[in-house]
Amino acid sequence: MLEKKSIQKNIPFVLPVAVMAPPPSLQDNTADLDRLRRAITANLPDERPLDIPLRRVVPLCRRFRHSRFTGVALVNDLPDRWVLADFLSQCPQILPAMALDLGTTGLEATLIDLLTGQTMATATRENNQIEYGADILSRIHQATSIRRQMHTVAPDFTDPGLTTLQQSIVFCINELAATLAAAGGMDVEDICALSVSGNTAMTHLFLGLDPFYIIREPYIPLANWIEPLEAWEIGITIHPAAPVWIMPSIGSYFGGDLISGILATGLSTNPQTRMLIDVGTNAEVVIGNQDWLIACAGAAGPALEGGVTRMGMRAAPGAIEFVTIDPVSYAMEVRTIDDAPACGLCGSGIIDLVASLYLARVIDIRGKFQHCRPDEISDNPARTAFLHKHVVLRNGVWAFVVIPSTGAKSNDEVLLEQVDLDALLRSKAASYAVLATLINQVGINFSDLAEICVAGAFGNHINPRSAITIGMLPDLALSVYRAIGNSSLQGAEQVLLARSARQSCLDIVNKITYIELNVNHEFMIRFSGARFIPHTDPTLFPSVPLFIEHKDS
Amino acid sequence: MLEKKSIQKNIPFVLPVAVMAPPPSLQDNTADLDRLRRAITANLPDERPLDIPLRRVVPLCRRFRHSRFTGVALVNDLPDRWVLADFLSQCPQILPAMALDLGTTGLEATLIDLLTGQTMATATRENNQIEYGADILSRIHQATSIRRQMHTVAPDFTDPGLTTLQQSIVFCINELAATLAAAGGMDVEDICALSVSGNTAMTHLFLGLDPFYIIREPYIPLANWIEPLEAWEIGITIHPAAPVWIMPSIGSYFGGDLISGILATGLSTNPQTRMLIDVGTNAEVVIGNQDWLIACAGAAGPALEGGVTRMGMRAAPGAIEFVTIDPVSYAMEVRTIDDAPACGLCGSGIIDLVASLYLARVIDIRGKFQHCRPDEISDNPARTAFLHKHVVLRNGVWAFVVIPSTGAKSNDEVLLEQVDLDALLRSKAASYAVLATLINQVGINFSDLAEICVAGAFGNHINPRSAITIGMLPDLALSVYRAIGNSSLQGAEQVLLARSARQSCLDIVNKITYIELNVNHEFMIRFSGARFIPHTDPTLFPSVPLFIEHKDS
Repeated sequence: MLEKKSIQKNIPFVLPVAVMAPPPSLQDNTADLDRLRRAITANLPDERPLDIPLRRVVPLCRRFRHSRFTGVALVNDLPDRWVLADFLSQCPQILPAMALDLGTTGLEATLIDLLTGQTMATATRENNQIEYGADILSRIHQATSIRRQMHTVAPDFTDPGLTTLQQSIVFCINELAATLAAAGGMDVEDICALSVSGNTAMTHLFLGLDPFYIIREPYIPLANWIEPLEAWEIGITIHPAAPVWIMPSIGSYFGGDLISGILATGLSTNPQTRMLIDVGTNAEVVIGNQDWLIACAGAAGPALEGGVTRMGMRAAPGAIEFVTIDPVSYAMEVRTIDDAPACGLCGSGIIDLVASLYLARVIDIRGKFQHCRPDEISDNPARTAFLHKHVVLRNGVWAFVVIPSTGAKSNDEVLLEQVDLDALLRSKAASYAVLATLINQVGINFSDLAEICVAGAFGNHINPRSAITIGMLPDLALSVYRAIGNSSLQGAEQVLLARSARQSCLDIVNKITYIELNVNHEFMIRFSGARFIPHTDPTLFPSVPLFIEHKDS
Repeated sequence: MLEKKSIQKNIPFVLPVAVMAPPPSLQDNTADLDRLRRAITANLPDERPLDIPLRRVVPLCRRFRHSRFTGVALVNDLPDRWVLADFLSQCPQILPAMALDLGTTGLEATLIDLLTGQTMATATRENNQIEYGADILSRIHQATSIRRQMHTVAPDFTDPGLTTLQQSIVFCINELAATLAAAGGMDVEDICALSVSGNTAMTHLFLGLDPFYIIREPYIPLANWIEPLEAWEIGITIHPAAPVWIMPSIGSYFGGDLISGILATGLSTNPQTRMLIDVGTNAEVVIGNQDWLIACAGAAGPALEGGVTRMGMRAAPGAIEFVTIDPVSYAMEVRTIDDAPACGLCGSGIIDLVASLYLARVIDIRGKFQHCRPDEISDNPARTAFLHKHVVLRNGVWAFVVIPSTGAKSNDEVLLEQVDLDALLRSKAASYAVLATLINQVGINFSDLAEICVAGAFGNHINPRSAITIGMLPDLALSVYRAIGNSSLQGAEQVLLARSARQSCLDIVNKITYIELNVNHEFMIRFSGARFIPHTDPTLFPSVPLFIEHKDS
């Protein structure tokens, strides 16, 4: 039980409140509910109203009587009021809550004890919605398949596709909650709170909000902020009265996952100007300090996410996450996650590979493969042998063999095809253009940044040196870069533990200036220049060797 | 649309709020919900938070778009916040709301236009719960039939009997709402709000709250105050988002109907000390003024409600509501409601009849029938004939024939049996004892009262002169008495129309001092003395003739 007053800022999402009431008598005929309410409000840390939903009046008053008018109330701390969630006969030993990063491709969650702040379990799983579309665009089409054929729809109309997608993600979350509960040795209904951090479209699909206008100019979400719900309202099978915090978003392309990242990095509370980058399907960037925040997002293309490029995959066992090629000996080193047999390339692996291919002059500044003509004799026999072995024709197009087939089964080679390479270059061009456009809007230089936090599922693994080499990140000292891992999940954890964090989310939304890049002319110009390796203007990347001579492929 | 600020006090339960928002554009990509929220809050009369439940986000945002971001929001005014209920493309011509007096025996309702305060329709019907028990006690037994056999019950246990009784009353309310809507020429879903005023037990049965402890010492209700609900939560088929105001109660025997009465009579706001009496199954009394309120209730017995005494009935067509017997000529005059053929006696009719019987010396001060011995010769032949004709033996017990059988069908005579008479005397004794005990507690005399408001279903019809004659009401000038009709319904109407009235209900609850008479020794002593006509102490009733000589019956 926490001391009154001192906890104002650190009130968890669900607060245990000691209840001690005198039993009723002829001299004190206060109704059970009023008796319970009085005993709770006497120990609440502030005077905001206490809601007691009708459906909980009978069971909780009965427990209150059974435990002789003494026990512990679990009270949800909502932005403008308290809500009674449960009544226990004694103080629980743990108060588990679930933080969730609701990714387009995968879900990652942690179980946190609200009494101590300790992490009790972690778990990940695929987003089952992939079955209905690998990317957000195709899922939104799926969720609006009837809607799109009609001029108008009735106010109460719900697209069956939206229902399907919502049920799919709710199923995933319930499974993940069950996994966490099992790992923590408790019932899933013991989980007393949930926080969800996802992009705007995923949040819409999770809540059953019509996403129709998200992808249509002028790109308007149905809702950026939904008040905390209770788990039962959306079919989440943790404690029915568990409050569900959904991270607010700012626009169709700037979602709650980024607000979570800003919260986790402390971007909005630090006096130094810093940058947060999250490169996934979109490149989302925020610059700011305690005084201001400016953000933008641009479609980075799907190159860095699994399921789109043929060999791309999530950062899972067997994914190649690290590649080097010695530019003289042409010795190649490859490392996979968990050292499992290679079966694809994750984001950091692709960036490493393309940087190495460029530095070894296997690709040129346009990203086209160099190869040996049959009659060609190189100065470097190692290079000749390497090109002969690794740069091959597949269906009339040149490709790079990362891992040759073992022969055990057909099609098990890991290949980087020209189409994958082109996708990556578009993606990195978009990322750099987003950064440069934003820096220009703010009127500072990259060198003014005290820190650049690189977030996202591959933020832990990305090699900033490789990202600089391909012109994806600006050419700054490597010490400026900090890989922060899954900041979307970290922010979700913070809102479970402290009212100040929950309030910060809403403050960030109000404070941020958002620039829509999908319609920004400057961005489109910068994007074109950034499609080369490292850039059409090499003075922007002084640390990257320049190879201007190249052969046509 | 109402002017901002000037309406603070008179905000109806549902407020129409003009909405005018600019359409979205690339320069203004505010989400639909945020756009709607901003446009509403800009026109709200105060800064309390606005809730928008998730289930209404999709349909209302869609309507908002369809009507080009302009229209009228219907916003529920709850005690601590606003809640968005609906969005209309234009301002409605009427805004109908239903006020309901939820009586044990009957329901009475009015349809009020919140825009003008005009009454649009009225309707009454029986309480179907009578099928499960005529009085509250037997209904509570019915609602706890399983519960009573168990030592403890699980927190989530719901007695099937309680469910049956709840569904029964919800069905009645829905039928009454449909009747009102039809009378007003609208859909039942157009009814945008409901207020319910009932005694504590009826409120429990309506809301599905376990009434088990209400009738067990120390007589503790489960809840005296339930925050306003939405109609869909309890199966009421008016507008699903219609707020439902349930009048708060003070104890098991002092319910929301009385709070409603205090509100309707202005008892708590008037500088003069006044009294409110509601005599039904219980005699409930409040004395007070703007500075203080004191209340008590005692079991008055069931004599005055239909369904208990054999000939007692509700004030419905055919009920005898007025009786006189000339004490010299013994001419008897009887009037029924709507002049329909007599089929029973309502409360005011029984009081008139007993007073007339006493003044005509047909009953003595103990309430025993006088009759003619076969050989008796009276001074007054008219009296002799009257006694012969009207005082008859039925199953060996004397009874009074009010209306003889027409012979058309058996058993159609209207009879006052000794058992009915005894019940009335207990009832009137309880009423008087309650009044006298309370007056004594306050330390004033009856003559200090500026007004006595007599409420209840028969409050409109009761003849104070008759009530004084039988010793039910104190012997004061008739001008002191004011029949106020169904003040329970009147209070329910007021809360629909003004926030100040809703706030007053909660203020009254906090202000009132409640005395539990079921365990009060003084009350029991006073009750014994008051069982005679008019009283064992005739000096308390100087205006009533005293007949001390009597014959044994």
